[in-house]
Amino acid sequence: MRISDTFYREITSKKLWTSIPTLLLCAQSVVSVAAARPRASQNSTYSSIEEYHRQRDDLIAQERALRFDAERIRNATSREIEASEIVDVLRRQEEVNIWSADPNKELGMPFLWAKETIAQTELFKLIKKMPKGGLLHVHMDAMCDASYLLKLALEYPIMHVQTTGPLNSSSPYPLPMFKPLTQEELNQATNNALPTSQEYIPGSWVAVQRAREGFPNELGGQEGFDKWIIGALSISAEETYQQLNTSTKIWKKFGSTFAVGGSILRYEPIWRRYVDQLLVSQIEDGISYTELRISFDPSLKPVLSEDATRNLTSSQVVNLTISAIEEVDKRMRAQGREKDFVGARAIYTTGRAISREAMAQSLDECLALKAEYPEFLVGFDMVSKEDGGHSLVYFLEELLSFRAEADKRGLDIPFIFHAGETLDDGGEVDSNLYDALLLGSKRIGHGFSLAKHPLLMQKYRDNGIAVEVCPISNEILRFTRSANTHPLPILLNHGVPVALSSDDPSVFQNPGLSFDFYQAMVVSNITSLISLGQLARQSLEYSSLNSSTKAHALKNWEDRWSTFLDDIIASK
Amino acid sequence: MRISDTFYREITSKKLWTSIPTLLLCAQSVVSVAAARPRASQNSTYSSIEEYHRQRDDLIAQERALRFDAERIRNATSREIEASEIVDVLRRQEEVNIWSADPNKELGMPFLWAKETIAQTELFKLIKKMPKGGLLHVHMDAMCDASYLLKLALEYPIMHVQTTGPLNSSSPYPLPMFKPLTQEELNQATNNALPTSQEYIPGSWVAVQRAREGFPNELGGQEGFDKWIIGALSISAEETYQQLNTSTKIWKKFGSTFAVGGSILRYEPIWRRYVDQLLVSQIEDGISYTELRISFDPSLKPVLSEDATRNLTSSQVVNLTISAIEEVDKRMRAQGREKDFVGARAIYTTGRAISREAMAQSLDECLALKAEYPEFLVGFDMVSKEDGGHSLVYFLEELLSFRAEADKRGLDIPFIFHAGETLDDGGEVDSNLYDALLLGSKRIGHGFSLAKHPLLMQKYRDNGIAVEVCPISNEILRFTRSANTHPLPILLNHGVPVALSSDDPSVFQNPGLSFDFYQAMVVSNITSLISLGQLARQSLEYSSLNSSTKAHALKNWEDRWSTFLDDIIASK
Repeated sequence: MRISDTFYREITSKKLWTSIPTLLLCAQSVVSVAAARPRASQNSTYSSIEEYHRQRDDLIAQERALRFDAERIRNATSREIEASEIVDVLRRQEEVNIWSADPNKELGMPFLWAKETIAQTELFKLIKKMPKGGLLHVHMDAMCDASYLLKLALEYPIMHVQTTGPLNSSSPYPLPMFKPLTQEELNQATNNALPTSQEYIPGSWVAVQRAREGFPNELGGQEGFDKWIIGALSISAEETYQQLNTSTKIWKKFGSTFAVGGSILRYEPIWRRYVDQLLVSQIEDGISYTELRISFDPSLKPVLSEDATRNLTSSQVVNLTISAIEEVDKRMRAQGREKDFVGARAIYTTGRAISREAMAQSLDECLALKAEYPEFLVGFDMVSKEDGGHSLVYFLEELLSFRAEADKRGLDIPFIFHAGETLDDGGEVDSNLYDALLLGSKRIGHGFSLAKHPLLMQKYRDNGIAVEVCPISNEILRFTRSANTHPLPILLNHGVPVALSSDDPSVFQNPGLSFDFYQAMVVSNITSLISLGQLARQSLEYSSLNSSTKAHALKNWEDRWSTFLDDIIASK
Repeated sequence: MRISDTFYREITSKKLWTSIPTLLLCAQSVVSVAAARPRASQNSTYSSIEEYHRQRDDLIAQERALRFDAERIRNATSREIEASEIVDVLRRQEEVNIWSADPNKELGMPFLWAKETIAQTELFKLIKKMPKGGLLHVHMDAMCDASYLLKLALEYPIMHVQTTGPLNSSSPYPLPMFKPLTQEELNQATNNALPTSQEYIPGSWVAVQRAREGFPNELGGQEGFDKWIIGALSISAEETYQQLNTSTKIWKKFGSTFAVGGSILRYEPIWRRYVDQLLVSQIEDGISYTELRISFDPSLKPVLSEDATRNLTSSQVVNLTISAIEEVDKRMRAQGREKDFVGARAIYTTGRAISREAMAQSLDECLALKAEYPEFLVGFDMVSKEDGGHSLVYFLEELLSFRAEADKRGLDIPFIFHAGETLDDGGEVDSNLYDALLLGSKRIGHGFSLAKHPLLMQKYRDNGIAVEVCPISNEILRFTRSANTHPLPILLNHGVPVALSSDDPSVFQNPGLSFDFYQAMVVSNITSLISLGQLARQSLEYSSLNSSTKAHALKNWEDRWSTFLDDIIASK
């Protein structure tokens, strides 16, 4: 880590940040509410400077006691404090030398502009090695690096690509869509003109490999092809920060990445390898457990069988997923890495823009699948843009019936709703946060607007409803400009339980959790290594694992955390 | 207003927003704090759909009761409710027809991109007419439209301009600086080459009028000159949203607008006319009272006498300001418009980057001026970038001595500190929010980071410490991207008293308060006309007016508010 001792002394003596011992002064506090009135201000007479500082320390400690990590800090071990102080020095050093030294950079700046710099910091490299517990909010269709999905499409000769018109030099190019063809379709497609040829018939299928090999040099050759596909699978800095400068425009692009990605992914052999790869890449990032949101929205393309002739049933998709997970589990055990992988579960999701009848059918299917896969299926949710779809209360009757029916059948399948992924304040969309509480949601996805709710923050905290906060996702989808303007610190300071999540890492280019953890730390002077540890621990505590597996997962995590601390202390 | 009746019925029947009657259900609530734990979720079994809705209404009402406007809504008159509902329909109509109809627009989008559209809406025109009470946070050096300051510079032949090098076609041009020359300097400057000539000697003075007339056509002629000066006095959309994309860069530009503006303003006759104009333009915007922050930072250029030979003393500057205000007051009375203008007061400010010795001197000067102008001088503050200067606690000894000395001399001169104008969380800069409380600050400026402080929000509320929130300022200075991502709703929903302010309208191009009020309303579905009324009322309640003048100002405001409601109801 190479922290200079001089720098260490300088920075600790200057008290540039609140030290751990101060935090240990934390006290419990009760906050009561009274109507605001201009009134006599706080008495501002102090018997001495020392008395002022005593009252100041008390006030700060009283507030810090409300934070999510207060108890953890009170009970911190000396090794945790030592490691945390080492990391604090490192971050101050990099703040000065990297972020403040360049007027074009700043801590918590827009992610896609910062990513390359972040990746080169020692702090990021350290966070990458940290055991991060569970990843509780991700969508199956947007997990792996876009280039990996393209690689898979290229490996299967059955995979074909189509587009809506011939590509020419004037970008943006039309969207590519993929499909594994049946033998018959394949025979017909053999001689189709390439998408880059003027003879291309819009909508006609061309083998992916052939389309790539024939991509003309003036459009960048094979690299140009890859750029086209990867650009369609992800959101670029140019797009989110400049071109697509409204919610409507960015969500249109976002939706299209799912359509393109799904057209590759929803093919049996690719699905299997994708599940394998996503778990492997998360394991490499220190994530030992994942809850995958899998969409069974009837309007989506079905998953096609290996020979592309059959649509897999929902049950077959679940089965396929489980078998891929078991494969990874077996491999990890064989490598003696069982501590690095606890497993994965799925949350059944459907679209929120569907009719009440379709919702009732989805809820029925979810119950049937839960009965079939009681351990694997751990929740129900509805997805897509909250501002565009129906609110939870719109489906109230269906949701209450589901709840009653699940109870009747003895199925433990909680709601884990998206709620508050909006800039709304107090309107219909934002009010999903009330319904998520009233409907007993186990956790909620995003909760971006929760910071606007003083009572709900309290209720979520008291009822242990964790919020799956996805800072980089929120930024790329334009809910906030950057990590340093994201409301995450508000939730953490209010003691709302948070599980940091990456949401759609293939689209947002935030693989694993390291980038989200890095940004969360550097935007707050009171989010320390101990805080990150608590976030990781919480992600397991608030997971859907059953109690014995959870205990096992937590024990594994503690062991790895301990080793991680040792490494930090040894590196000083 | 031309609201179609069909639209009105449609929108009210669809309950697209929470209606006033629902808000009237508000109940008091006590929020208690407990450690977070995953635990049994809220019971989600309900005896009927109606029972669910009853509990839902209760929950929402309980939370709304915490809002700053809850009491006002409980006590709303039927005319207030009627007018508010008319305005609600109007805003929904414009939301649909103007903001959602165009994928390039959205409610609360970046101000400088939205301004032209906002200005054309009926809602804005209505808000412009609203009586807005007091403007509590503005800086004297950045009040009037930049073009007005340029106009003044052009009217005085004594005013000269200099720059650091010859201007040529490659913009950005170097900064212009102004100065009224003494007779002797003036004689020497008569034949100086123009800034746009290759013979221009950097730093040499040229009469402003001559520089403008000689501005060559290839640089845009006289319009090109005006663009140069106005560009140096304000921040453009291009600059804040694109070019100057870090805090460091935008604050550098921001600081330079003050240097340029101050070099015109700090001349006795211009100062006098500027004070007049700023009050007149605010009166036209419905603002009846202003608290001006006037900087006496010793490092700033002094105000020069009419013949440019003498520096005015601080006392003379205050006197000059008071006499200009009295002039406006007299004129308003003569026009029978005494209800439209209550007066103006000043907050003494100095820079926060100065030494402790210089701070002690400033505090002494402030006390002396307070003794001399007991009614006019109402507070002490320190200004400039919080992230760059010293924190409040750095000056603790000086501030406590000032407090004791003021008490001893019987001078009522509270602190009204800038605090929390930062993206920091829990560090030294953000901690100004603790010290503002402990030092008895009467209000605070900005409080942008206050939303991150659960306990302080409570304390500010309980102690009646209003927050002078400047949403457009915060946006242009890159604390947030746009109104729809600003934390204002968090403070309002937590019941923190807020006084909306424009901060530096000449730089940010948000004259008066109408743009800030408009943005505050449209980004929240629960900020209604009644809420705006409460914000206006609060701005007087939390002002520094003495109790009898305050009562008088509030009475005037109520009368105007009543007329305003009548006009809305009549216009339906």
